[in-house]
Amino acid sequence: MTTDAARLTADLIRCASVTPEDDGALDVVENVLSGAGFSCVRVDRGGVRNLFARWGDKGHPRTFGFNGHTDVVPVGDVAAWTMPPFGAQEKDGFLYGRGATDMKSGVAAFAAAAVDFVTQTPPDGAVILTITGDEEGESIDGTTALLDYMETAGERMSACLVGEPTCPDHMGEMMKIGRRGSMSAWFTVTGVQGHSAYPHRAKNPLPAMARLMDRLASHELDQGTDHFDASTLAVVTIDTGNTATNVIPAQCRAAVNIRFNDLHSGASLTAWMQGEADRVAEAFGVTVEMKVKISGESFLTPPGALSDLVAAAVEAETGLAPVLSTSGGTSDARFVKDHCPVVEFGLVGRTMHQVDERVEIAQIHQLKAIYGRILRDYFS
Amino acid sequence: MTTDAARLTADLIRCASVTPEDDGALDVVENVLSGAGFSCVRVDRGGVRNLFARWGDKGHPRTFGFNGHTDVVPVGDVAAWTMPPFGAQEKDGFLYGRGATDMKSGVAAFAAAAVDFVTQTPPDGAVILTITGDEEGESIDGTTALLDYMETAGERMSACLVGEPTCPDHMGEMMKIGRRGSMSAWFTVTGVQGHSAYPHRAKNPLPAMARLMDRLASHELDQGTDHFDASTLAVVTIDTGNTATNVIPAQCRAAVNIRFNDLHSGASLTAWMQGEADRVAEAFGVTVEMKVKISGESFLTPPGALSDLVAAAVEAETGLAPVLSTSGGTSDARFVKDHCPVVEFGLVGRTMHQVDERVEIAQIHQLKAIYGRILRDYFS
Ligand SMILES: [Zn+2]
Ligand SMILES: [Zn+2]
Repeated sequence: MTTDAARLTADLIRCASVTPEDDGALDVVENVLSGAGFSCVRVDRGGVRNLFARWGDKGHPRTFGFNGHTDVVPVGDVAAWTMPPFGAQEKDGFLYGRGATDMKSGVAAFAAAAVDFVTQTPPDGAVILTITGDEEGESIDGTTALLDYMETAGERMSACLVGEPTCPDHMGEMMKIGRRGSMSAWFTVTGVQGHSAYPHRAKNPLPAMARLMDRLASHELDQGTDHFDASTLAVVTIDTGNTATNVIPAQCRAAVNIRFNDLHSGASLTAWMQGEADRVAEAFGVTVEMKVKISGESFLTPPGALSDLVAAAVEAETGLAPVLSTSGGTSDARFVKDHCPVVEFGLVGRTMHQVDERVEIAQIHQLKAIYGRILRDYFS
Repeated sequence: MTTDAARLTADLIRCASVTPEDDGALDVVENVLSGAGFSCVRVDRGGVRNLFARWGDKGHPRTFGFNGHTDVVPVGDVAAWTMPPFGAQEKDGFLYGRGATDMKSGVAAFAAAAVDFVTQTPPDGAVILTITGDEEGESIDGTTALLDYMETAGERMSACLVGEPTCPDHMGEMMKIGRRGSMSAWFTVTGVQGHSAYPHRAKNPLPAMARLMDRLASHELDQGTDHFDASTLAVVTIDTGNTATNVIPAQCRAAVNIRFNDLHSGASLTAWMQGEADRVAEAFGVTVEMKVKISGESFLTPPGALSDLVAAAVEAETGLAPVLSTSGGTSDARFVKDHCPVVEFGLVGRTMHQVDERVEIAQIHQLKAIYGRILRDYFS
């Protein structure tokens, strides 16, 4: 008897688990896992529900991990959907609903693959599943809480696969071996208000802000690395709110967003921007305040045993050799990478976060087959 | 019998002549002038009331002119006034009310001086008074309408004194022989919206705007001239209104204000900014739209007969030799300068446009004496 990953996906879609709601989603997974001998621990923190599940001996030197999330983004304009967003309805071979691709099918596929694997061919080793209800939200009490729990409890994974959608158009064409880091910085330049006719009596913050943004935007951070595109900085807003042309304003605000590769860190970029801000403050006689938020550091699991394992399984099941990519936004792999080597592979994510989000049912089965083959190959 | 300029000022203050309202203010002046033999013409245009008055022969080659306005700025926060803004109340030698210094006392002083002069010592020549109800507003149908009327009617002044307040602290210390020009420009930079993670698929307008504003603000327009301070450019606002750090916005707006001396014109500065805008548009692959408004060209009446005449009269009455200045904002002298040589002299303007605007009554009489001496000396 095998576990039906498509049916499990449908069960998950029927839970309206918009972050931070769970609506029974983790119960659905936990029921399947405990039935197969997984020991399950709920790691709830800050109003978020998370599930830790292990089959096999704690601390086994060969422990393969899967990571994923059951929370979903809001449905948006419900009227624009042609199917109920939490209805899990089928049509023309597709299963519809919020989270169909991102990533209830991924969680269902690896849970089903793991259950079948440990029950049919129990390995000499362990399998750990970490499933969070806070990936789409603040991501503060999600995978981080699970990793904190594992640290405390002495739980370890030897390698981990995150089941996020990774394929742009065709099943199997791409996996992720890293992600760029992401951070934002907010600048406030303060001078002294005055009359446009007497600028020497004022201290205009705007030329200082223009210079600072010009310097940040025109600086080439790098030209890319072996596995990463060039880092980018985007000035996303500059605002003053002054409507009187005869008034020099006292203050101006701006924000930038940086996507950075493995040549940088949040700290190195913060130091660089602070230096530029200080130079401009000095040159223009204004004060420049900077506030930064690092959403995620860049990470890279260099091509090797883990990526070879996953790529071989993908190619065997789909006929496509996946490209090893580091493109796209952040994922929880940015947390897992501090614990063990991590890569990401999942299905085609084209409809994620959109209305009428849907997954091709055949691809759920294909994904489960890939995850099952990875487990067999890893423990063989 | 002489005309009481302080009483005339009080009569004017009692008219609530906030632009474009007149509330009988021009009637007050016209009554006094017609009684002394001035022929008066109402030049009303665009909902604004203006008064043209001449004593003596039309087209006389020695025609001295005075220019001023009876309209006032709004009273602002009435509760903050300790005196009724249109009450013309006296206290401790001061007369209180909106327009007390800017410039009902100036109009009263030159009207009283002119009436006394032509009735007591009728000159071989003519005296023209142009008084407008639209100096504080748009200034489109005010002094311009009066000058248009004069052009049509064949009326000419040989020289003109504008009676705006010109003294920073002490009566007699400063007169104006010119004013800087003033203009504003509004810029809209348009690119292509996109996601911060993929800046190469977007065209961010913000770096282009930052570069443009930096170039405009850091350019030295000049170092000043014999009679003018250096021209100045103030960036007054830069606005985007984007609150999402993962979004590159499509558009950004900014505005600058320029105060310029006689080395520039509205046209030359427009051409310079357009050139900078075009260069930035080309370099960044964005479009830059520019809209300009020229509030007034710069003007200079070089030191000579007219400024000597006024300075001598000021020194004789106050003991102070007035500085010949070109500082401050614009005034209607910017229109009169195309008609004849023009300078400006008036009283201390410290409380103009403020709550509890007031004038020292003794200074009204002193100002009338100065204007009377100017008339006597001019026609002697
Ligand atoms: Zn996801
Ligand atoms: Zn005025």
